[in-house]
Amino acid sequence: MKLLPSNLARKLRRWKKLRKSPLQRKLDLLHESARKRAFQHISADYVFEAQKEFADNTLTTLRVKQREPYLNNGSFHEAVGKVLLTAQCFAMMPVRGVTAKHPSRLSFSWRHVRTICCLIFLISTLCDLGLTIYKVVHGPINFNNIKPIIFKSSTLLVCLTALNLARNWPKLMLHWREIEQDLPEYHTQQQKCRMAHTINMIMLIGMMLSFAEHLLSMISAINYSFYCNATDDPVRNFFMLTNDHIFYVFNYAAPLAIWAKLQNVYATFIWNYMNIFVMVVSVGLASIFRQLNENLRIFKGMHLPPSYWSERRIQYRNICTLCGKMDTAISLITMVSFSNNLYFICVQLLRSLNPMPSVAHAVYFYFSLSYLIGRTLAVSLYAASVHDESRRSLRFLRLVPKDAWCPEAKRFAEEISSDLVALSGMKFFYLTRKLVLSVAGTIVTYELVLIQFHEDQDLWDCEASGNS
Amino acid sequence: MKLLPSNLARKLRRWKKLRKSPLQRKLDLLHESARKRAFQHISADYVFEAQKEFADNTLTTLRVKQREPYLNNGSFHEAVGKVLLTAQCFAMMPVRGVTAKHPSRLSFSWRHVRTICCLIFLISTLCDLGLTIYKVVHGPINFNNIKPIIFKSSTLLVCLTALNLARNWPKLMLHWREIEQDLPEYHTQQQKCRMAHTINMIMLIGMMLSFAEHLLSMISAINYSFYCNATDDPVRNFFMLTNDHIFYVFNYAAPLAIWAKLQNVYATFIWNYMNIFVMVVSVGLASIFRQLNENLRIFKGMHLPPSYWSERRIQYRNICTLCGKMDTAISLITMVSFSNNLYFICVQLLRSLNPMPSVAHAVYFYFSLSYLIGRTLAVSLYAASVHDESRRSLRFLRLVPKDAWCPEAKRFAEEISSDLVALSGMKFFYLTRKLVLSVAGTIVTYELVLIQFHEDQDLWDCEASGNS
Amino acid sequence: MKLLPSNLARKLRRWKKLRKSPLQRKLDLLHESARKRAFQHISADYVFEAQKEFADNTLTTLRVKQREPYLNNGSFHEAVGKVLLTAQCFAMMPVRGVTAKHPSRLSFSWRHVRTICCLIFLISTLCDLGLTIYKVVHGPINFNNIKPIIFKSSTLLVCLTALNLARNWPKLMLHWREIEQDLPEYHTQQQKCRMAHTINMIMLIGMMLSFAEHLLSMISAINYSFYCNATDDPVRNFFMLTNDHIFYVFNYAAPLAIWAKLQNVYATFIWNYMNIFVMVVSVGLASIFRQLNENLRIFKGMHLPPSYWSERRIQYRNICTLCGKMDTAISLITMVSFSNNLYFICVQLLRSLNPMPSVAHAVYFYFSLSYLIGRTLAVSLYAASVHDESRRSLRFLRLVPKDAWCPEAKRFAEEISSDLVALSGMKFFYLTRKLVLSVAGTIVTYELVLIQFHEDQDLWDCEASGNS
Amino acid sequence: MKLLPSNLARKLRRWKKLRKSPLQRKLDLLHESARKRAFQHISADYVFEAQKEFADNTLTTLRVKQREPYLNNGSFHEAVGKVLLTAQCFAMMPVRGVTAKHPSRLSFSWRHVRTICCLIFLISTLCDLGLTIYKVVHGPINFNNIKPIIFKSSTLLVCLTALNLARNWPKLMLHWREIEQDLPEYHTQQQKCRMAHTINMIMLIGMMLSFAEHLLSMISAINYSFYCNATDDPVRNFFMLTNDHIFYVFNYAAPLAIWAKLQNVYATFIWNYMNIFVMVVSVGLASIFRQLNENLRIFKGMHLPPSYWSERRIQYRNICTLCGKMDTAISLITMVSFSNNLYFICVQLLRSLNPMPSVAHAVYFYFSLSYLIGRTLAVSLYAASVHDESRRSLRFLRLVPKDAWCPEAKRFAEEISSDLVALSGMKFFYLTRKLVLSVAGTIVTYELVLIQFHEDQDLWDCEASGNS
Repeated sequence: MKLLPSNLARKLRRWKKLRKSPLQRKLDLLHESARKRAFQHISADYVFEAQKEFADNTLTTLRVKQREPYLNNGSFHEAVGKVLLTAQCFAMMPVRGVTAKHPSRLSFSWRHVRTICCLIFLISTLCDLGLTIYKVVHGPINFNNIKPIIFKSSTLLVCLTALNLARNWPKLMLHWREIEQDLPEYHTQQQKCRMAHTINMIMLIGMMLSFAEHLLSMISAINYSFYCNATDDPVRNFFMLTNDHIFYVFNYAAPLAIWAKLQNVYATFIWNYMNIFVMVVSVGLASIFRQLNENLRIFKGMHLPPSYWSERRIQYRNICTLCGKMDTAISLITMVSFSNNLYFICVQLLRSLNPMPSVAHAVYFYFSLSYLIGRTLAVSLYAASVHDESRRSLRFLRLVPKDAWCPEAKRFAEEISSDLVALSGMKFFYLTRKLVLSVAGTIVTYELVLIQFHEDQDLWDCEASGNS
Repeated sequence: MKLLPSNLARKLRRWKKLRKSPLQRKLDLLHESARKRAFQHISADYVFEAQKEFADNTLTTLRVKQREPYLNNGSFHEAVGKVLLTAQCFAMMPVRGVTAKHPSRLSFSWRHVRTICCLIFLISTLCDLGLTIYKVVHGPINFNNIKPIIFKSSTLLVCLTALNLARNWPKLMLHWREIEQDLPEYHTQQQKCRMAHTINMIMLIGMMLSFAEHLLSMISAINYSFYCNATDDPVRNFFMLTNDHIFYVFNYAAPLAIWAKLQNVYATFIWNYMNIFVMVVSVGLASIFRQLNENLRIFKGMHLPPSYWSERRIQYRNICTLCGKMDTAISLITMVSFSNNLYFICVQLLRSLNPMPSVAHAVYFYFSLSYLIGRTLAVSLYAASVHDESRRSLRFLRLVPKDAWCPEAKRFAEEISSDLVALSGMKFFYLTRKLVLSVAGTIVTYELVLIQFHEDQDLWDCEASGNS
Repeated sequence: MKLLPSNLARKLRRWKKLRKSPLQRKLDLLHESARKRAFQHISADYVFEAQKEFADNTLTTLRVKQREPYLNNGSFHEAVGKVLLTAQCFAMMPVRGVTAKHPSRLSFSWRHVRTICCLIFLISTLCDLGLTIYKVVHGPINFNNIKPIIFKSSTLLVCLTALNLARNWPKLMLHWREIEQDLPEYHTQQQKCRMAHTINMIMLIGMMLSFAEHLLSMISAINYSFYCNATDDPVRNFFMLTNDHIFYVFNYAAPLAIWAKLQNVYATFIWNYMNIFVMVVSVGLASIFRQLNENLRIFKGMHLPPSYWSERRIQYRNICTLCGKMDTAISLITMVSFSNNLYFICVQLLRSLNPMPSVAHAVYFYFSLSYLIGRTLAVSLYAASVHDESRRSLRFLRLVPKDAWCPEAKRFAEEISSDLVALSGMKFFYLTRKLVLSVAGTIVTYELVLIQFHEDQDLWDCEASGNS
Repeated sequence: MKLLPSNLARKLRRWKKLRKSPLQRKLDLLHESARKRAFQHISADYVFEAQKEFADNTLTTLRVKQREPYLNNGSFHEAVGKVLLTAQCFAMMPVRGVTAKHPSRLSFSWRHVRTICCLIFLISTLCDLGLTIYKVVHGPINFNNIKPIIFKSSTLLVCLTALNLARNWPKLMLHWREIEQDLPEYHTQQQKCRMAHTINMIMLIGMMLSFAEHLLSMISAINYSFYCNATDDPVRNFFMLTNDHIFYVFNYAAPLAIWAKLQNVYATFIWNYMNIFVMVVSVGLASIFRQLNENLRIFKGMHLPPSYWSERRIQYRNICTLCGKMDTAISLITMVSFSNNLYFICVQLLRSLNPMPSVAHAVYFYFSLSYLIGRTLAVSLYAASVHDESRRSLRFLRLVPKDAWCPEAKRFAEEISSDLVALSGMKFFYLTRKLVLSVAGTIVTYELVLIQFHEDQDLWDCEASGNS
């Protein structure tokens, strides 16, 4: 075999030109010139925008205070403010300045009132957990009965992790802001607001659903307490049913009952909040990857200088580093959230095979099961979106034309295709779409096995605790 | 350590020449010259074909109308025409111009009669599904009893997805045609017709088998209705048995029975069609990858200019993009098709352990089970062939000789080996041969568990619905 | 950040030299010169060997006949000769010239007596299978009862595949020989004989164990036939027990019994042989990879010209292509062998939980189970060795020094690390060490489930067939 | 599409400079100069350290003996000395010179007293195992009853592997020391001591826990022997209960009982020690990877000459080679340790469902189960840390600036990202964090299945052996 003889090669090349009909060639020329114009337009736009932005920046840097306070600057810190504020109402994340414009105003102190509230709640939860364990070990231990222990200990664990996270939060947010500012900015206010909007919607819907679930749970418990009326006082019956671990040790007393109810409300909030928190952080991380991808998309298929790719690569690398830092900070919460969801789904499925004692129970049960499955799916998919967005950059690198293909673009492409950027559960598993399938498969298998070998167990007797 | 001394290296090289005996060397020379001639022959062929084609193209572009209408141009649009036309007879894919020569004639309109038919069918299915759910929730809910719900809701889902797909179909087909025309063309009519032939065979065999299955199902139901004769009228018995969800609510009426039968025929068609559709699209995608690979195969191991690789890489990239677009468009159908197949196989296996009430049932049962397994295998393997074909290009890149190895070839090879090109089920799983094994493994495991702990359940009583 | 100032860099470099003590430096020099000498020695050796070999080759090419017939040339064709000859005694692989010195003497013809024998056996097996199916469908169908069908149909399938393989065998062996001759040759007769030795040992041990297993099976069946004596004639009892599928249809007749016994012996041989065959091919493929690796190992860490890597890469590529061809040719046999082994292990484990009717049965049972597990492990590990050897080349490429790192070496390394070279079961699974673990895991899980939910089933009654 | 017009590109570049405000630019300049100074500082430090080290080395090489004996030189050999010494007290790892300063003083001899002790213990274990097997095959064989066989045979296997390892230990340690000395050294004594400290803590905690477990096991057995008192002598009762396999064959005799107790203590030690040993080797390997990463971390993001990367790459490669050698040497121990842990956890979980005969048993049971799970987790995580550390180098390579990106850095990055460096169980599985999850998943699934289909089996009767 020899190289193509040069004259043949030349002919081939000429033929390739000729292959297209004159008409087509003309169309091509028209097309090409249109393309050029479009590119110049974009470039001009870009320069114009850049100059405007430069002017903006100059102003911004010097006169931040004068800036319009009602304009969203698209930062994660700002978007997540309300989410953290809500958490603080329930004794979590005791960090100051969450609603400030700039993350530099964030601070953590052990002496702050929020921190003290949080510590008090931790001690209170510890007592509650102790009583629960005491109750459980005095009965038969099985998959269903340890539910309150799992529920309360994960609440405690998340609270502790959140406390630790609060200490690092100011530093993390400053780092995040730095990386955000380094990224190519969005040009429209709408694009900037998108992340904040998504986060707010998640918070709102998540809170509403969890509130509905708690209400239904209470109605079902009230209903149930009538059915197993131990005493004449319906309020007392209700509290004795839902807090049997306390009145197993102590005699009934109103203050104890109120404390228990409060404790239960707080724990339920935190149990729901940890899922919301994982979603919110995922949305934040996915959104900065999207911001980068948006820029890559605009310049898709164009001839760009190596410096462009070098800059983007460094930005991408920075986001990956941030992703790693956030993952380290929240991966315990992620893990607790995931294992909790799995455990509660399995327990509910186990119960699903038993006849319901009342319609209220049936409604609550199916709502609760759907809520659990929906929540698990939502957490999984939002968390997986970080991985999806991080891979999407590769698509634009595949379209780099031959002449613009430079070592920096190559390095960028290789780094994306060989690294795995995703949130993880303590690095034991990575949250990708594949995980969702394997989790779903596990649950379905478990359900099938349950159905196949089902023998009626009476899980709905008056002794069993009816909480959450 | 030093480099091989130059004189030693020279000796080595000379020795390598001498290593072969004079006879062998002569043979080699002969062989080499034969090879050269072959290559010149191919090149000449190629140039000749190219010139011919160029001439053809020139003519074609200017005088499309004059072209022989009975010549298949090997496009997917043309091959898939009849498949879509059949679907339209059953209220799916309401898009106009499916049998036109060029995809530019495709159009979708909400006001078109096909679209309206489709919408009517959707509403009718919705009613049917509602009645079915009403019936099911009034009995015990288990793996076997929810079968009609799964069947009808997936029909509805596929119909809706197909409606949405119909809206995008003209654009997709134009894009597909563009990419097809850019590819190196086949030289023989036979190669061009291959895809159309495969698609027609799939359609024909698929439809025949599904018709046979439906017939058997009816015979088995008729047989069964004699056995459980509720009334004296055999026709009435049959309809009351197969449409028990309707006559659970309404009294028996002939028009209702006819509507139910029609609904059932349509639903059965769609339930079969979704598998055929996934296969057809897979064949189409695999076939354009094969067209590219065919070209790579012809020039296998030759010294080719970088521009050759650059061109092929861009074509490969375009096909990948198309693959991604098609996947996004049909992945819901793929998912429904897969999960349906799995569910129905599991239900049938569950039934397989019970004694059959009649010979007709036994024949129907084993035919139906084989049909289901065969269909699932066929869908999986055809879908996996897209992935297989996309990887096959790599084999030819591995054979590029040392001197012709250029950055473009390298980039091409790296892109193929690091990307995963395959149809997917909503990106949760990718349809590769590996998936087939894991699916088979799951089914076998399920069957083993079933066999091991089997207790007779009477699934064949007169109350159980006998549909599909 | 700037580049290291040049003077600093120079200092660093000088320091690196100085870092070592004078003594060490002297030692280094000594070491280096020793190394050089070693390399020159090897190179000289190589050239010498090459010249000798060249001389040999010249002679060989011209006077093949005069060569010493007792010298093993290390080719796979020669090593596998006896294995194929044995197979031909049992109506498999009807190809002529398997014991010839050169694969060019191999030929296949439909009219040859071996082919006719093979076809007769196929028809005979078909009859046997038909009778077996007839017997089985007239009883309850379960995991245990379909054992004879699985056994006989896989025999038939393997026979058919082997017949097809025989047609392609001459071409495959010629290709193999070509690639082998192109590889760097071994220098010692011992290395050359190694593969042939391994293949012979596998054949010998495999055949002996399968013979022992068959003997034990017969003893156990004889023992059993005394216990369930239907008639007075012990020979008749034995045949009626082991061939119940024949005497379920026909009356007892001596010729039928002899035919059945012969059929059984042949089927048992083939059932064992397919595993041996997969092992033998694996050993052959692994051995040519090892031959290449041996050469890479000798030149490990040396400065070699790019042409060295280019040559090795092409040889590696050729072996991969051969591997692919062999895999396509035998993958059906591999698949049948694997699934058979898995199925029979599971059936035996299922039986293991039942009390044995006699000591002979117990001995046979535990020997048979160990044999099955050992055989499965051996097939898996030998097949996995192809993959292991194909990856081992990478280790030597990692040690290429900085200056000798060339594009060809890079390409070689990338190709090895991104390709998966292994035998497969119809491309559904690849035979690697990982597979062994997952198969073992599956079997253990199955056994655990069996143990946990064991209810005595009487699998050892007189009705159950006691064959193989 | 064209390249960016040069003037536009120039403008863009200028704009990028101008984009930052004058203030920011000034800050940047300040920052940059600070950075430069820092780098020069580090470089100066490095040169200084290097010169110091060079002086040290010169001294060291010539006068090793004069060096301060109380200074830890951070070598693995030194750190592991006490661990091996402890093992030698229990007849394992009979190699001399484990506490010497330099690995060159290590030696193995078959005639050494330690080796002879080891061989005597092996024979003694063999007898014990024989008696155990004899006892077990005379009863029903099931998952629970084969526990003593598994326990003793794995002890034997580990002992044999350790004996073989002892023969290679001197060579391995010399190789390890060589690689360690080649690595960039730590500057503080604290960093040097870290590995030794970790190893000591593992040894201490591991031994204490295993001692506590053994004590509890004895207390539980004593307690139990009172309950099932076969004779009047409590000591005799205890020995007859814990060594039932011996007194099943022989009559009771005090020397036999003492031998059995001794044997049991030794076996228990070895059963615990194998886990500790795997952990210790993992810590050693992870620590040399960490030493390399520490150096990469210091120079993170700086402009470094290609020679830096080349040197680091070779060091990394050496560590990988060492890792491979150590893995080959200990992978049988790793495998035995892993499978043992899994088996014992499953057996304990099986027992967990039965009511405990006494409180002592309950305490022992839950302590033992927690200990087993904790130990398995610890082994898995320490072993996985080798893999984690080996991947961490990649993170620093991702931060190499554009101008300092050289072929050597590229080769380094590609090698890390494509190779899998980890301890393995006979290459069947690799010890990574992912494995931990799949193991946990398997155990949880097993437990769920157990719970779901639990039927009381009386595993706590007087006949069942209560050992370990």
